[in-house]
Amino acid sequence: MELEFIRWLSEQLPQHPNLTLGPGDDAAILRMAQGDGCVLTVDLLTDQVDFDLARVDPARVGRKALAVNLSDLAAMAARPLAAVVALALPRQQALPLAKQLYQGLLPLAEQYNVAIAGGDTNCWDGPLVISVTVVGEVVGGRPLLRSGARSGDKILVTGKFGGSILGHHFEFQPRVEEALWLAGHYPLHAGIDCSDGLSLDLWRLAEASGCGAELDAGKIPLAEAAHKLAAQANDGRTALDHALGDGEDFELILAVPPDAASELVSRQELACGLCEIGRFVPERGLWLVDESGARRPLVPQGFTH
Amino acid sequence: MELEFIRWLSEQLPQHPNLTLGPGDDAAILRMAQGDGCVLTVDLLTDQVDFDLARVDPARVGRKALAVNLSDLAAMAARPLAAVVALALPRQQALPLAKQLYQGLLPLAEQYNVAIAGGDTNCWDGPLVISVTVVGEVVGGRPLLRSGARSGDKILVTGKFGGSILGHHFEFQPRVEEALWLAGHYPLHAGIDCSDGLSLDLWRLAEASGCGAELDAGKIPLAEAAHKLAAQANDGRTALDHALGDGEDFELILAVPPDAASELVSRQELACGLCEIGRFVPERGLWLVDESGARRPLVPQGFTH
Repeated sequence: MELEFIRWLSEQLPQHPNLTLGPGDDAAILRMAQGDGCVLTVDLLTDQVDFDLARVDPARVGRKALAVNLSDLAAMAARPLAAVVALALPRQQALPLAKQLYQGLLPLAEQYNVAIAGGDTNCWDGPLVISVTVVGEVVGGRPLLRSGARSGDKILVTGKFGGSILGHHFEFQPRVEEALWLAGHYPLHAGIDCSDGLSLDLWRLAEASGCGAELDAGKIPLAEAAHKLAAQANDGRTALDHALGDGEDFELILAVPPDAASELVSRQELACGLCEIGRFVPERGLWLVDESGARRPLVPQGFTH
Repeated sequence: MELEFIRWLSEQLPQHPNLTLGPGDDAAILRMAQGDGCVLTVDLLTDQVDFDLARVDPARVGRKALAVNLSDLAAMAARPLAAVVALALPRQQALPLAKQLYQGLLPLAEQYNVAIAGGDTNCWDGPLVISVTVVGEVVGGRPLLRSGARSGDKILVTGKFGGSILGHHFEFQPRVEEALWLAGHYPLHAGIDCSDGLSLDLWRLAEASGCGAELDAGKIPLAEAAHKLAAQANDGRTALDHALGDGEDFELILAVPPDAASELVSRQELACGLCEIGRFVPERGLWLVDESGARRPLVPQGFTH
């Protein structure tokens, strides 16, 4: 229902002078009185949807609640500054649970130099809800939007894809430093983080840019977990299928002009790796090109809210 | 448990260079690269704690979720700029409910010129949760803190107190314009908004300022609803008791030097009214002075999370 709701909401919201960039990208950008602009994003995680509190260390939940927001800021090439944390805690275990959540969240905040600026801590009779809002700043006046890809740009991705449910969705490193470094050294045209699925998020970026995208099946970096999950499930889905549709990889998907893309791929200056997996094309849509060169339409797959 | 948790959390959080003002006041202030600083606050409301969805128009809930944050910014004398809205929606009625929430929230956003900068909309099997984060800016480099009251300052309040549960807690006007006007024209020393109870929030302000406060029982402006609730409940609590302890009045409690206080009270330039209800004193604590001049200790009362 989120898509239908967002469509309705966007009709209710006029362009607002306080925003340089409104809803619809990975984060919004506020026009501050002075300065480069303040970037704002929120994510809310709930028990039984985003995690199963009966089966996971709450510290991992707290870490993830901040990490997904940092990933959104990475997708804007913005530097995170501060976070506020809103909690609805099951009454019976409120205090120890709140502490455990923060014991996962705080080390990540420290790692990324994010100040905890406040919060709102509530007890109730419902399951755990954790909502984190992160504020960051645009660096050098150049936020990385979803809408800047041009036909001919290469599709570059950090890291590997698929099988995140086996653990990566709690353990991932948001690509904040990578995004800042890349945006500071290369002319990136567009970016998004892969939260809902490589094919779905790539399609969103292409749609926002008014173009299409071709993925080279043989070039998509498959996570070990993608192979493992394919073998475990034995349901006909290949490791590639998992890489294309699982989501929660929290890697960057970038549109980069060809010269810069070649240079980036040959130099390999990021520890997480950087792969060229396809190209943006004029015609809207998504295609998968196999190793024989045959091209077939690809249905964007992934998690829809 | 919130107090114990916040105490624990404050021990885990070092002073952070990204913050001009950290957690503990009505909102935090971020040190931006340039500019006066960006003010950040969050509130999370849950069904059955902050409202009863079975008995209230959801538009009122949406309005309240934004309004409580605007009240926090008013308490900082900060100008609100933008909000993000995170929702956990009961699955069966997600879309119509989300729209109704926004139908209450959006007119208030427009009234206060607040941009809706984004959100996160989730469905789940639990009850409604709505968390709103608001970003604002410090005006003229002078945020209004809780910690600036001095012995001898007068206690001034906007509006009236008590009986909010009869409707005011949904209908209140956050005192944003009033706070900006007051801070722009008078040397306010400290401020807080009354969310949990007049006596409790006043005591918090006094504690943060390292002083105490005396309230004049006969001068506290009693809302019509305070009288009504006292008559209805017939449990021995007077209208004054309700004004001192009910909370959710969302009026400003201010520490103002005597000369400015007299001028403000005699001029009465605010439509909501401005009353002098007591004074700050050197000795820590809270007292109620009755009309005969007798002074007795007052236990801070109100809602504790």
